[in-house]
Amino acid sequence: MKMLINVPETVVADALRGLAAAHPELTVDVENRVIVRRDAPVAGKVALVSGGGSGHEPLHGGFVGPGMLSAACPGEVFTSPVPDQMARAAAAVDSGAGVLFVVKNYTGDVLNFDMAAELAEDEGIQVAKVLVDDDVAVTDSLYTAGRRGTGATLFVEKIAGAAADEGQPLERVAAVARQVNESSRSFGVALTACTTPAKGSPTFDLPPGELELGIGIHGEPGRERRPMMTSGEIADFAVHAILEDMSPRNPVLVLVNGMGATPLLELYGFNAEVQRVLAERGVAVARTLVGNYVTSLDMAGASVTLCQVDEELLRLWDAPVKTAGLRWGM
Amino acid sequence: MKMLINVPETVVADALRGLAAAHPELTVDVENRVIVRRDAPVAGKVALVSGGGSGHEPLHGGFVGPGMLSAACPGEVFTSPVPDQMARAAAAVDSGAGVLFVVKNYTGDVLNFDMAAELAEDEGIQVAKVLVDDDVAVTDSLYTAGRRGTGATLFVEKIAGAAADEGQPLERVAAVARQVNESSRSFGVALTACTTPAKGSPTFDLPPGELELGIGIHGEPGRERRPMMTSGEIADFAVHAILEDMSPRNPVLVLVNGMGATPLLELYGFNAEVQRVLAERGVAVARTLVGNYVTSLDMAGASVTLCQVDEELLRLWDAPVKTAGLRWGM
Repeated sequence: MKMLINVPETVVADALRGLAAAHPELTVDVENRVIVRRDAPVAGKVALVSGGGSGHEPLHGGFVGPGMLSAACPGEVFTSPVPDQMARAAAAVDSGAGVLFVVKNYTGDVLNFDMAAELAEDEGIQVAKVLVDDDVAVTDSLYTAGRRGTGATLFVEKIAGAAADEGQPLERVAAVARQVNESSRSFGVALTACTTPAKGSPTFDLPPGELELGIGIHGEPGRERRPMMTSGEIADFAVHAILEDMSPRNPVLVLVNGMGATPLLELYGFNAEVQRVLAERGVAVARTLVGNYVTSLDMAGASVTLCQVDEELLRLWDAPVKTAGLRWGM
Repeated sequence: MKMLINVPETVVADALRGLAAAHPELTVDVENRVIVRRDAPVAGKVALVSGGGSGHEPLHGGFVGPGMLSAACPGEVFTSPVPDQMARAAAAVDSGAGVLFVVKNYTGDVLNFDMAAELAEDEGIQVAKVLVDDDVAVTDSLYTAGRRGTGATLFVEKIAGAAADEGQPLERVAAVARQVNESSRSFGVALTACTTPAKGSPTFDLPPGELELGIGIHGEPGRERRPMMTSGEIADFAVHAILEDMSPRNPVLVLVNGMGATPLLELYGFNAEVQRVLAERGVAVARTLVGNYVTSLDMAGASVTLCQVDEELLRLWDAPVKTAGLRWGM
């Protein structure tokens, strides 16, 4: 498998150097692998720190900036960052108002963020945590006890980031983040496997004529394999799977997310089918975002995330944000 | 080849329906295939219209909005739109201040935009045209007499769009657009071919261990094939090819553009190497943009575009823009 890299060992460091060059508004510590808003700590405001394995870009480093994350810690590809990275990030961004850790539900991330919280608290930093576990496809999986954290991470980081930006206190920012996670559900499909630089060959075997329904963002197995389906059939399956698990009374935010290698032309077409199914099911749509946001390297496929929002969450979603991967209003 | 589509015949229409659903700030005429700013025509301001074959998203439909294009006309995949689409778009956005057609240099696009200009002028619309031909890889090619139009299209549309947004007159907006094109050079590489929905198999054959240097955005042949190279070697080759053809005295805008299927992690790493080569060659960098902007469906690979900017062009680049694919300052 061909890749636009130097050697697998330097992929993450190379990407961090390239991120730093493109984004002078970020402070990128390449050696310690911490990406921080250049203006951090911001006086009087709660800071948000997230992180996880690399390979899901723009998540999380591309979501660092005003109105979203204060810092992100990238691990090796598909590998949790270490507690030292997270504690270092927390120390860099804490203004005294405390730090919220946004943690996707994978065993390694959960353990390491727990240890980082202890390290940070030892330094006198007040820490709260939110666990993101929105993927309805499977309960328990490779790397996960309970549901996996996927597309809802974007909603949690954006909406809680807006609450923090307004100067809301730590317990309130954490409560908003938990509300967003509890209001969100996701379902993903893969048309191809992905290839990590270290392995150099596809992480799993998916035959030419089949797709995997309920895929995880590291290529973890989903619910089932089927012969290839149309965009409309996939939208039916994914949205129905989500709506088996939630009954939105309020309008929803919709994320139609590409896994990495699926063209935007196809993602927009898929969005048309997702919107059709939501209309058939009587679900009102408040906002829709289409693009590659929570990716799995070069995997072809897509995921759908719905987040039920009240007026307050919608207001926070619409608030200005300025990051490499998501930007509006400034 | 698996795709997230219904049937090849409806790919463009499906994508337009999905675009409309996600972006209520656009008026999308699915039947006639015209994407227009909802607030068009904007009184007293020059309008920009572009278009071309589909499969390069977010170009051009994703660049419609305040500060960039007034309208875009998507053709079938890798096929020019027809003159009626362009004339319809011009009529929808002309405020009386005239329309600038931004035309990538492909034979079909050039002919059709010429015919559209005649149609629009017959309706009393003042039309100017700018031809984008920035690709230094080859002179004359499949589909093209002269150089191909690629990544510089983004710079032309953004910077001329800002000039139009300021209320500059048509001749001035056209002059700015031409200056941007003349100040820009691009070079692209492919690690894989792309697959059009209609064909369903790769558009050309690229062996596992080779890459194509100087690829076009439809998979047109480049300069040569070589055994696979590192990110650093590719950056050396691409930037040197560009600098053989331009000697920037002013700082440059850098676009490190993904062809569609190359992960953002790799694109940022590639950017680090591009910046290294520019520094070695003494070229100052004003701004850098990294991402998938002028794509070739599911092709893996990347292109580099440099645009030499004076203070005025840089000011217009930094001006606010609000589109699906590029947004800042509002």
